[in-house]
Amino acid sequence: MNKGQTTREFIIEKAASIFNKNGFAGASLSELMAATGLKKGGIYNHFKNKDEIMIEAFDFAIKKFNRQIYLAYKDKKTSLKKMQAIIDFYKTYPLNPVIEGGCPIINTAVDSDNTHPALKSRVKEVLGKWIENMCFIIEKGIEAGEIKNNIDAHKSAVFLVTTMQGGVLIARSFEKISYMEIIVDQLNAYINGQLKK
Amino acid sequence: MNKGQTTREFIIEKAASIFNKNGFAGASLSELMAATGLKKGGIYNHFKNKDEIMIEAFDFAIKKFNRQIYLAYKDKKTSLKKMQAIIDFYKTYPLNPVIEGGCPIINTAVDSDNTHPALKSRVKEVLGKWIENMCFIIEKGIEAGEIKNNIDAHKSAVFLVTTMQGGVLIARSFEKISYMEIIVDQLNAYINGQLKK
Repeated sequence: MNKGQTTREFIIEKAASIFNKNGFAGASLSELMAATGLKKGGIYNHFKNKDEIMIEAFDFAIKKFNRQIYLAYKDKKTSLKKMQAIIDFYKTYPLNPVIEGGCPIINTAVDSDNTHPALKSRVKEVLGKWIENMCFIIEKGIEAGEIKNNIDAHKSAVFLVTTMQGGVLIARSFEKISYMEIIVDQLNAYINGQLKK
Repeated sequence: MNKGQTTREFIIEKAASIFNKNGFAGASLSELMAATGLKKGGIYNHFKNKDEIMIEAFDFAIKKFNRQIYLAYKDKKTSLKKMQAIIDFYKTYPLNPVIEGGCPIINTAVDSDNTHPALKSRVKEVLGKWIENMCFIIEKGIEAGEIKNNIDAHKSAVFLVTTMQGGVLIARSFEKISYMEIIVDQLNAYINGQLKK
């Protein structure tokens, strides 16, 4: 990376938590200037506008989120163990997010709804991939004979991702991890009682 | 209501959808002026500041939400029928919200997180009451012998509310009610398979 690229990456990294905490309308240039130590021109030298910074910041946040989840389950040998590792990741995630300010998928889904179609479309894509990824793990589990073969992998993946994301929303609202623990217990009961062969 | 109160209520009603669509930082006085046909002075004559409008608008939205849910289940005679009616309400709620812009609980939970402690505290209270209400319905069902008596009503209520709210988030993100239908099917399976005696 040349110096320009390094500065650009540095701005995106700082912008990721500022946008995640404050939303698109609430994120201010002055906060980004303070966080980066750059002047307005030093920031807009690298980006067309606020929209471009927000979309890059969201992509940065999602890459970090995806990487953390992948690291949590990549060494697990079976689909059930992979799912367990993902649920364990979510057990602490609400109050210990990958990017300061909470889950970038939830925050950006709500923030972009009604106001920012380009960003909303990115959220849809990211959520779609996350569900597809979970679906793939379930399908592999069916093939391997670990998971019942009458399970609809897509529906099951939608349920798991939705419930985990809902748990993050509720646990952050109450600022109590005990709410996420209730959800995790229910999801474990679902996996062991409904999915597992 | 005197004329001042009528105007105040009118401003709150218009503000509710503007804040619900745009969030606190994104909601503009000019949009509220356009929606009410009032000038700045005509609005701030009734409120101390933007914070007061937002909190009153949130309370208005929640009253409307609570009333719609209550109307959906009030005539049902048993706890299981009440729960069914609530889930049926949620089946269309994501794309047909009570207040334009989506679910005010989800929107305000995300919007206030990190930025607006007074509003966040109101969200926590509203979510707490919603869970308590669901818990009460489950407890009545246990007393009536409809629901298994080894069920932890609080945990079950947290799971139901979390999953329904998560479903709203996901269905709105995809702009497809089919995602909510998947969640509704899972919740019905949970109620019939795990809770029902």
